[in-house]
Amino acid sequence: MTNHRIALVPGDGIGPEVLPPARQVLDAVGRRHGITFHYTSYDDWSCERHRREGAMMPEDGLDRLRDRDAILLGAVGHPDVPDHVSLWGLLIPIRRGFRQYVNLRPVRVFEGVDSPVRGARAGEVDLVVVRENTEGEYSRAGGRLHRGLPGEKAVQEAVFTRAGVTRVLDYAFGLAAARGGRVTSATKSNGLVHTMPFWDELVAERAAAHPGVPWEKEHIDALAAKFVLEPARYDVVVASNLFGDILSDLAAAVAGSIGIAPAANLNPERAFPSMFEPVHGSAPDIAGRGIANPLGAIGAAALMLDHLGHPAAAKDVTDAVAAVLATSDVRTPDLGGSATTGQFTEKLLTLL
Amino acid sequence: MTNHRIALVPGDGIGPEVLPPARQVLDAVGRRHGITFHYTSYDDWSCERHRREGAMMPEDGLDRLRDRDAILLGAVGHPDVPDHVSLWGLLIPIRRGFRQYVNLRPVRVFEGVDSPVRGARAGEVDLVVVRENTEGEYSRAGGRLHRGLPGEKAVQEAVFTRAGVTRVLDYAFGLAAARGGRVTSATKSNGLVHTMPFWDELVAERAAAHPGVPWEKEHIDALAAKFVLEPARYDVVVASNLFGDILSDLAAAVAGSIGIAPAANLNPERAFPSMFEPVHGSAPDIAGRGIANPLGAIGAAALMLDHLGHPAAAKDVTDAVAAVLATSDVRTPDLGGSATTGQFTEKLLTLL
Ligand SMILES: CC(C)[C@H](C(=O)O)[C@@H](O)C(=O)O
Ligand SMILES: CC(C)[C@H](C(=O)O)[C@@H](O)C(=O)O
Repeated sequence: MTNHRIALVPGDGIGPEVLPPARQVLDAVGRRHGITFHYTSYDDWSCERHRREGAMMPEDGLDRLRDRDAILLGAVGHPDVPDHVSLWGLLIPIRRGFRQYVNLRPVRVFEGVDSPVRGARAGEVDLVVVRENTEGEYSRAGGRLHRGLPGEKAVQEAVFTRAGVTRVLDYAFGLAAARGGRVTSATKSNGLVHTMPFWDELVAERAAAHPGVPWEKEHIDALAAKFVLEPARYDVVVASNLFGDILSDLAAAVAGSIGIAPAANLNPERAFPSMFEPVHGSAPDIAGRGIANPLGAIGAAALMLDHLGHPAAAKDVTDAVAAVLATSDVRTPDLGGSATTGQFTEKLLTLL
Repeated sequence: MTNHRIALVPGDGIGPEVLPPARQVLDAVGRRHGITFHYTSYDDWSCERHRREGAMMPEDGLDRLRDRDAILLGAVGHPDVPDHVSLWGLLIPIRRGFRQYVNLRPVRVFEGVDSPVRGARAGEVDLVVVRENTEGEYSRAGGRLHRGLPGEKAVQEAVFTRAGVTRVLDYAFGLAAARGGRVTSATKSNGLVHTMPFWDELVAERAAAHPGVPWEKEHIDALAAKFVLEPARYDVVVASNLFGDILSDLAAAVAGSIGIAPAANLNPERAFPSMFEPVHGSAPDIAGRGIANPLGAIGAAALMLDHLGHPAAAKDVTDAVAAVLATSDVRTPDLGGSATTGQFTEKLLTLL
């Protein structure tokens, strides 16, 4: 019997609606594989708490998570709290504080899900966006000058370090080697003349260190276009924090719905807990109606199982997800169905 | 008889292949509408010239263009010259030097062109990306520290000014008012905590100054996804330099091919010449084969006619383009045909 201590951070909006299904799935697959999960739930780490106490989580929040084996997060964000406050008060400090420098976002087209893109057929699109997750364009360096005056301006500094870029590139090349695949690097060295040529140099350097792995680079504008025109071309796509954010949402849409896509925020060295979350946000427009698609959170749970050393259990989950989509019409409204979160989860559990 | 002095800057790759068709179209429609174009061609402003003389254009390049009524540009870039050298030596100095602060990129789905996106039907997708074109993320502010050492890093400063953002927002709101449409502003205030909240504030300010125009904002990641899921939802999309670059290539792909999309680099005050170009780049992979799609350049010529005060002539061009696509199978390979650039242009000219 293996035991794992899991932190649940449901967060805001549909976050608290999609974590219970993920937990049910974990428990079901755990029973079969001899894994017991011990959950601690951090229910009030949220915008609600921010309104009440002025902070998204307690000051020692990271310390309270530190001895968990992994973190499962729902979603963060509410219209009443500016996004740059809520996100930088909860999601981003965890990503950075726990050195989760790889944001892994696998995208595949499932049989039974209609992709909005003609060229995206089930079994053909199977790519992973490897997104740098701790530096780059998302930075607090910068500020505002001459507030309210005609000469007002805002500056924001993107910061790319050799160490920070190298480690995520090595992860991407290693992953492509393991998949027998190829690396595509997203760049924009023609427009962003300081950071992106540096990124490109490091890509060439790490490519030389992984001589067996084919690679290419593509400007982010052209790459976004090709995700729509030829999505099946791509395997491992490595990108900066911002570009990876855009490309992974786009790829999820190409695969049919951002409601399905999962993300892993990995500290590959396992010096800190890694965090798993759906790609979708808190979706205030549908929160409270019980119709959120739990597949992003369930996919995140599968990525967590994999990271915790249970690839067979992870595969059971993704097989069940593929099976429920391929063989049944029960699905949530974002996928064209009319099932509630609970009804869809029940159906999925029968296949586990 | 109206006379216009037009600067032709063919540039690199397929640039010199797509400008002659645009010129043939201009001359044909000019004959009908009593407009004479006087061309000056700047044939050697290119990467070829950079290799020979160390600069993309002469030092007084902008002065040589200053008294033209408009500039028609082909494409810039060649594998032998780093993109950040070629682009910042020709395209970007013109955009900035001539205060072309609006980059206008209309996207529509033409009948007869298969969109890769199921939801993008002819007549339903008809949007315009209004891209800020002179500041923002594309900046020379920044640099490299500790080159080659383990502590190496690159920083790049995005700079947004009140004046620079306000003027492009006013253009976008004005355009939406003229179209009877709506403004969607691309943001990423949850990740880019200095520049994007500033952008959002200015959007709210300009929206208040245009009370009749409905507007909304959307994070760039979600917006990229929605361009694929619901492209017909959008009308005028206003975005920063980088976001507009990504969104306009993506929208062009949604409409079937980036070979079709035109762009206008506008100085709305007409204090300087404006520049018109296809959205596609120099495409070294197909250059020299005579198969480039001239429609991006021809669409750019139509935008130029409009800017020069000839909306009826512009409409003749876009009507002919719509007609040739709807009624004939003659098209270039990027649209699934086998016509050469010349054959396609001939066919189009019969409809003008
Ligand atoms: C070539 C590049 C610098 C340019 C840009 O990003 O502005 C191009 O992609 C465009 O969209 O005109
Ligand atoms: C909410 C936001 C800060 C976040 C990001 O951009 O990182 C989200 O879009 C994501 O992709 O996880």
